[in-house]
Amino acid sequence: MTNKAFQDYYPDDFSHCYGCGKDNKQGYQLKSYWDGDTTIAHFQPQSYHTGGMPGKAYGGLIASLLDCHGTASAFAAACQDKGCELDAEPFMRFVTASLKVDFLKPTPIDGLLEIRGKAIEVAKRKVILDLSLIAGGETCATGHMVANNNILIVFIYIKQTF
Amino acid sequence: MTNKAFQDYYPDDFSHCYGCGKDNKQGYQLKSYWDGDTTIAHFQPQSYHTGGMPGKAYGGLIASLLDCHGTASAFAAACQDKGCELDAEPFMRFVTASLKVDFLKPTPIDGLLEIRGKAIEVAKRKVILDLSLIAGGETCATGHMVANNNILIVFIYIKQTF
Repeated sequence: MTNKAFQDYYPDDFSHCYGCGKDNKQGYQLKSYWDGDTTIAHFQPQSYHTGGMPGKAYGGLIASLLDCHGTASAFAAACQDKGCELDAEPFMRFVTASLKVDFLKPTPIDGLLEIRGKAIEVAKRKVILDLSLIAGGETCATGHMVANNNILIVFIYIKQTF
Repeated sequence: MTNKAFQDYYPDDFSHCYGCGKDNKQGYQLKSYWDGDTTIAHFQPQSYHTGGMPGKAYGGLIASLLDCHGTASAFAAACQDKGCELDAEPFMRFVTASLKVDFLKPTPIDGLLEIRGKAIEVAKRKVILDLSLIAGGETCATGHMVANNNILIVFIYIKQTF
């Protein structure tokens, strides 16, 4: 695990996300890292991040954490696949095409949440990932994401148009 | 459309959700209603609900809105299917078993968002719904949800155990 998170490599123009942007002072500022061949992030919920009943997380928080960790993990996996560093240019910013979340059990908010990701397919313009959210050693939710490298898509579109 | 939202019928013990609980003062307090045979809710994002780039919503917000509108719509659809009022007892509180979100295009945050739901299957212990998020007349995201009536499940478990 290194000290500099995947999101810390995002150029300033892409660093405003409420979930993981370093320049969004009101947001979660999620930080994702390599941990072996999987990726990892941690998040401490606040007491008001509750679901219907106090003490458990609301579904939207869980989806948010999986989403932001997923796109950051897609970026890191794409760089690894290309054999380039995270600060290589052109920057590859991944956006979520689809995210499916399975909520397995209520997620307690009184402790640190662990979010894990694993790229299961890395293609030229998309990365497919399996994600999970763990609390107190128990997997409370899993996710399946398709993330697209939109910047590359825009670049190809411009090339074809002009 | 009536003045009292689905979420306003939730008992106090279930009204703490960050996304839609009337008793969560820091949350979104989403309100869902019938609109013909579909359900509808509206939400005005704040400027800090941005995704990577300013001006567009972050994915977690979109998932949150679809999630909370979906479970509320499942509750309303289950009541309608049973032919009972929203304040009938025992109260049926639906929780998300799974939610798949397809992000079709960036969602602007400078205007009111419309969230729509339609129950496509109502069974004894679950409701399946199609959801959508619309901004400026354009569908920016769609969702597919399986919602479980957890209260009923707990009740059955207790009955079987003791």
